[in-house]
Amino acid sequence: MRGIITLTTDFGRRDPWVGAMKGVILAVTRDVDLVDLTHEIAPHDVLEGALALEAAAPFFPADTVHLAVVDPGVGGARRALVVARGEQRFVGPDNGLFTPFLLTAGWRAFELSAPEFRLPVASRTFHGRDVFAPAAAHLALGIPPERFGVAVTDPVRLPWPASRAVADGVAGEVVHVDWFGNLVTSIGAGDVVAGGVVSVAGREVGSVGTFAEISPGAVGWLVGSSGRLEIAAHQTSAAAILGVGRGAPVLLRLRNSTKK
Amino acid sequence: MRGIITLTTDFGRRDPWVGAMKGVILAVTRDVDLVDLTHEIAPHDVLEGALALEAAAPFFPADTVHLAVVDPGVGGARRALVVARGEQRFVGPDNGLFTPFLLTAGWRAFELSAPEFRLPVASRTFHGRDVFAPAAAHLALGIPPERFGVAVTDPVRLPWPASRAVADGVAGEVVHVDWFGNLVTSIGAGDVVAGGVVSVAGREVGSVGTFAEISPGAVGWLVGSSGRLEIAAHQTSAAAILGVGRGAPVLLRLRNSTKK
Amino acid sequence: MRGIITLTTDFGRRDPWVGAMKGVILAVTRDVDLVDLTHEIAPHDVLEGALALEAAAPFFPADTVHLAVVDPGVGGARRALVVARGEQRFVGPDNGLFTPFLLTAGWRAFELSAPEFRLPVASRTFHGRDVFAPAAAHLALGIPPERFGVAVTDPVRLPWPASRAVADGVAGEVVHVDWFGNLVTSIGAGDVVAGGVVSVAGREVGSVGTFAEISPGAVGWLVGSSGRLEIAAHQTSAAAILGVGRGAPVLLRLRNSTKK
Repeated sequence: MRGIITLTTDFGRRDPWVGAMKGVILAVTRDVDLVDLTHEIAPHDVLEGALALEAAAPFFPADTVHLAVVDPGVGGARRALVVARGEQRFVGPDNGLFTPFLLTAGWRAFELSAPEFRLPVASRTFHGRDVFAPAAAHLALGIPPERFGVAVTDPVRLPWPASRAVADGVAGEVVHVDWFGNLVTSIGAGDVVAGGVVSVAGREVGSVGTFAEISPGAVGWLVGSSGRLEIAAHQTSAAAILGVGRGAPVLLRLRNSTKK
Repeated sequence: MRGIITLTTDFGRRDPWVGAMKGVILAVTRDVDLVDLTHEIAPHDVLEGALALEAAAPFFPADTVHLAVVDPGVGGARRALVVARGEQRFVGPDNGLFTPFLLTAGWRAFELSAPEFRLPVASRTFHGRDVFAPAAAHLALGIPPERFGVAVTDPVRLPWPASRAVADGVAGEVVHVDWFGNLVTSIGAGDVVAGGVVSVAGREVGSVGTFAEISPGAVGWLVGSSGRLEIAAHQTSAAAILGVGRGAPVLLRLRNSTKK
Repeated sequence: MRGIITLTTDFGRRDPWVGAMKGVILAVTRDVDLVDLTHEIAPHDVLEGALALEAAAPFFPADTVHLAVVDPGVGGARRALVVARGEQRFVGPDNGLFTPFLLTAGWRAFELSAPEFRLPVASRTFHGRDVFAPAAAHLALGIPPERFGVAVTDPVRLPWPASRAVADGVAGEVVHVDWFGNLVTSIGAGDVVAGGVVSVAGREVGSVGTFAEISPGAVGWLVGSSGRLEIAAHQTSAAAILGVGRGAPVLLRLRNSTKK
């Protein structure tokens, strides 16, 4: 059975760097399908990369290798990492990119240092091509993670966007503005109660069941595709209507809001 | 033989949603090649999605499955659809996205409702991932279209951009401005007569045989890659030069135009 | 073993033209993996396409077919070309796109004219789909390059961006601004001496070992991922900081610069 390697980077699509990484992989093994998750992570935005992995990786077959490179520290002291969680494998820089898979027990991590799994001459500027791509290819071939280097017990973890209980509900923040302009928040499906009213940017936003229920000009909230409370508009950008972006505070009132 | 599934959406490439759809497909079957047509359909623009499918789908092998999701009505009352035309299969929302393949006899359509071909828990916001992707994978595995649900005899069809005979020629409109700024019109190759002069935006445009024949600063018309009359400029955007976009009226005079 | 075909174009990703090319390839052979290098070459910019091929093609397995279409002269007098270099194959217009592989001995080139390897009806506007894609598919199937047409001994070569020795060092120019805003120059790794100071846009720029060594607000130079001297900033665009783009002169002083 052919292996699967996904690729997630902040390299953009204009330069041929993602292509070069795929060439390196295919030079190690051709028995693999390559799937792009995204290459348009905002440059150097490790959190955005981690959120993208969290949203997409769970839908892949269990033995998939996820290669991710958002790597402002390339060539410096940061470690290179292989993370195993069940049968899934992750490979990339040790800078928090794999935080969602390191928050609960069940992971193993290894420093990616074995010279036989990288290009003979590795640059100091492009480990995606010279270090991580060949490692991903070897992982797809079935080389066990522990063969890549010593165990790492303290991989870097980002402070993970969370929600917290407050007097009148649940407080969180906007963690991502997606392509449609929807505001994805740190409030997870488990904290959501039907009928709650969301306060964001001084406005109160009611819940809807689907995007199609939102009236033209209005905004509404629902549990979106990433399993998070999400604020959307009618076929336009909620971020533009509300004038807010990442980091904006969001409050979900679990009882009916009082009139202001 | 590996199956082929093409993907067409308005999801953009920045978020990992297309990746998640591919993960769902590969979790059903790995014996498939995945080919992106485009993920940059203007958000919610069903007509643009339909035109993209019309332009590219006919070049694929006959047994290809075309998965398309431009779906402003997701989670609401709109039906989900499998369309069969010869050996080709289309899967997506019933909102007109498959109009080009429903204009003439030879199609069969079925409501996509059988629960065994969707994810166990389908969201109300992302049928691309939860409903259409698993259906496409099962179609690629050879499940017959009629197994997905009851026959649909009245699938939604968009009013299709057409041309009409007028006193001095053929009248149509701009249906698309492409990446190069070329104006793609609703006038098909069959209605074009050599030597005709096109009127658009108050200008008269002569015919050329190739893009390279257009002089710097000038515009010309030819039959473009989608088999439609197309207005182009010399290595720049005809849309910018003429100041027009989708919906602009276009007249092809079939006799030599009279001087104004 | 499945073949590999890479694709490089200036078609963008919004229109379905790359998809149509892949459909044509898969209709000839399904025993092939398709890898995008980039489709965001600036429209009609043959040099940028050639630089992308130079940066990525060498990392692919030796028998890869590289299909490239930046083709402002489509439908006119320019020839269509198959280039062989070792086991690698290139197919596209004869306009300089393959210059990096034609600069030193070891290449063979053939005019792509045999009618049996193109679509039955080839348009005059889209040779990528009608001529080059089917040729690439047949090359991937193992048809020898000389079967496609007569030998070409004078393929078009672009003046190739180079560096030249000057009194106090090596002079070159910016050849590309990449996605991160790094300035890629015509000065190759072989001409670089540690400790040299680069002059660009009236500023002096010191060398660094990695991107991470550059301080916030500063710029530094290093040998980048394409094996060329590259000027970068700290997690932002060096092009924006320095206010320069392609063509800007760059001087590498091989001794310590004198204070101005």
